[in-house]
Amino acid sequence: MFPKPYLIFVGDVPYSTATKTALGVRRWAPQDCVGQWRLSRDAVDLELPDFDARAAAAAGARSLLLGIAPIGGQLPTAWIPYCIEALEHGLDLVNGLHVKLADIPEIADAARRLGRSLHDVRYNRQKFAVATGRKRTGMRLLTVGTDCAQGKKYTALALTQALRARGVAADFRATGQTGVMISGSGIVLDTVVADFVAGAAETLSPDAADDHWDVIEGQGAIFHPAYAGVTLSLLHGSQPDALVLCHDPTQREIGHYPGFALRSLRETMQMYRSLARVTNPRAQFVGISLNTCRLSDEMARRQCQNLAAEHGLPCFDPLRFDSREVVDRVLALVNACVLTD
Amino acid sequence: MFPKPYLIFVGDVPYSTATKTALGVRRWAPQDCVGQWRLSRDAVDLELPDFDARAAAAAGARSLLLGIAPIGGQLPTAWIPYCIEALEHGLDLVNGLHVKLADIPEIADAARRLGRSLHDVRYNRQKFAVATGRKRTGMRLLTVGTDCAQGKKYTALALTQALRARGVAADFRATGQTGVMISGSGIVLDTVVADFVAGAAETLSPDAADDHWDVIEGQGAIFHPAYAGVTLSLLHGSQPDALVLCHDPTQREIGHYPGFALRSLRETMQMYRSLARVTNPRAQFVGISLNTCRLSDEMARRQCQNLAAEHGLPCFDPLRFDSREVVDRVLALVNACVLTD
Repeated sequence: MFPKPYLIFVGDVPYSTATKTALGVRRWAPQDCVGQWRLSRDAVDLELPDFDARAAAAAGARSLLLGIAPIGGQLPTAWIPYCIEALEHGLDLVNGLHVKLADIPEIADAARRLGRSLHDVRYNRQKFAVATGRKRTGMRLLTVGTDCAQGKKYTALALTQALRARGVAADFRATGQTGVMISGSGIVLDTVVADFVAGAAETLSPDAADDHWDVIEGQGAIFHPAYAGVTLSLLHGSQPDALVLCHDPTQREIGHYPGFALRSLRETMQMYRSLARVTNPRAQFVGISLNTCRLSDEMARRQCQNLAAEHGLPCFDPLRFDSREVVDRVLALVNACVLTD
Repeated sequence: MFPKPYLIFVGDVPYSTATKTALGVRRWAPQDCVGQWRLSRDAVDLELPDFDARAAAAAGARSLLLGIAPIGGQLPTAWIPYCIEALEHGLDLVNGLHVKLADIPEIADAARRLGRSLHDVRYNRQKFAVATGRKRTGMRLLTVGTDCAQGKKYTALALTQALRARGVAADFRATGQTGVMISGSGIVLDTVVADFVAGAAETLSPDAADDHWDVIEGQGAIFHPAYAGVTLSLLHGSQPDALVLCHDPTQREIGHYPGFALRSLRETMQMYRSLARVTNPRAQFVGISLNTCRLSDEMARRQCQNLAAEHGLPCFDPLRFDSREVVDRVLALVNACVLTD
């Protein structure tokens, strides 16, 4: 979808949640990153060669990736010349910011003049059909959460890698802008008109071989007061065979929604399972993925053990512990399907 | 929102589901209809004076309402001159078709030249914020369904009328194009970008007096494989105190989705209640509204009695039986809130 490899623009933004897209692309698609473009010593260091547009183009870069979130989501005026410089050196722009580069006249004009493309990842112009509910071939895993930002994307990426490491044909299916920038394809679901979100989710994981896995990045949370609708449409359109619940064990309330207490993992899984079975009666949980970044190693391990025992499911942190048991469960599902079909 | 009253265009379309918007506006907003414009004897008769654009303008009409659905949703070329004729006689166009009149050059040009507005009801350009989850003042009733097209709009309209007849301040809140054309305001929810649907639903029923009721038109169904996401966003954003379940007792499967069996009313209500309580812990069912158009009077009455006994809720058909008991329950909720607050 986007010309790769990328030169990653970090500007002068220090390490923070504002740099998470850049860090995500660096971490999960290292083969697609030729360098970083830093404008200050304080800027986050992605541990990539430091290039400007000219040097990156010489090193083979085909796009400048804007993976930092400036405050307010607007593009600082000072960054416009760097964007134009990249276009002049033959790079496309891959933009994950809220601002649309196509709406910035200097950049739009330069792109037109130079025959380059502006990929505004958050602005989807693709049209989707209404969901059909038709069961597709192949196997699907969807990560779901107790809230937003619980590790759904990283869990899906880690499980895709782990499946591939076991020789299984597996594809990561991105549903948010960072995921789309990491994988170079996917659908930014939250930009789709409401009636077509389940249909878009159907398009995202098409018919595949019986033992092929699509590992789909979840969005939102089913008890989230603002985003549950997107979560449900994705759940229905994905028709997952396997679900993995993502959770931060230190969290008590929905982020930014004080007073909205998280439900128990049991209630949350029950709700997901019951709604998922509308489009796939076989939907079941195969694991729990904990985001333990706020816990010590010892605490994290104990939490995983406790939850595993409580729910009878493997429990892991994809950035800390191995996912072997979850992958075992996933693979067992394929055999179960083959046996009962 | 739209200039009223309307001249309703029915063209040459005979009575059918294609004429339901025209019939709905005629039935629920008779005070807003000055006449009908029929091009053929076979066209549906709304029992309004037969006018062309000139005669309607003389009788006070301010808009031509396109409330028929031509096959495929496109505007037949033969209708374009009638649209232009209406513009020439000083009428706006209120259009519920899938086609956008603003995209038809002859019509767009004429509107510009004559200074008239084209209200393409299905194309919402309003921007909404992400839902806040903040509890609003006032009371809210939402109609929900076992499927699409079970009477959610008519039930909401009938209950609004019944509440007003009892001297209660009540507003119908439209969420679909027919509802918007009937009430002259509202939000066509299924055209809103997914992330903002719950936010749009919050906007739709703003803070109000403690004993004021917003009666909100539901959309889709919570077990619908394509539209459940919209249903859930509307449920969360509406934060209803009262829910009314709409159902066609002769239906066994989701319409146009063979193999997707309807769930029991009990399971359906349980799911709605449990999800509604995310944003309003007081949410409860106050009645069941049956669409009994396929049943005899005797059968309809028996069905209502049986379901009322089974679920301990008043059960009625808003087009056939009175809604007194449901309204009693609705009004009792206000007292309950005042007592516990």
